[in-house]
Amino acid sequence: MKISAIVTLKKEVLDPQGKVVNQTLKNMGYKNINNVRQGKYFEIEIDETNEKNAKNTMEEICKKLLANSIIEDFTINLK
Amino acid sequence: MKISAIVTLKKEVLDPQGKVVNQTLKNMGYKNINNVRQGKYFEIEIDETNEKNAKNTMEEICKKLLANSIIEDFTINLK
Repeated sequence: MKISAIVTLKKEVLDPQGKVVNQTLKNMGYKNINNVRQGKYFEIEIDETNEKNAKNTMEEICKKLLANSIIEDFTINLK
Repeated sequence: MKISAIVTLKKEVLDPQGKVVNQTLKNMGYKNINNVRQGKYFEIEIDETNEKNAKNTMEEICKKLLANSIIEDFTINLK
């Protein structure tokens, strides 16, 4: 089973990388771009047939390794 | 309108960051993880009411700035 997680900085945390992309897009002529946030994406292949178990494992992995819960949020999606 | 893009390395391109995460998870005791691929995630707020236009703009942005089409693929999602 393939499962993915998106890790993003929390809304209240400054995202300098996103700001740079935003400014670059403005300089390139995209005037209708208001805000850019950047995050990380992880796709994991897991030996698991039960969707709930796979999601729980992924949540555990995010909390322990992939995301810093002080400044980051994560969302999990089955593929 | 919020629109997001996920940029990942193409399947045939080696993903050393993913490999490290995979190995770390194995070392942490997750024996049922087979493969990890890492990518980038971008969330953009765009002044646009037409979904098709927003998607087209995002595709253009991905091709021009966010993704390196030689080694990377991208997928676009409306939020």
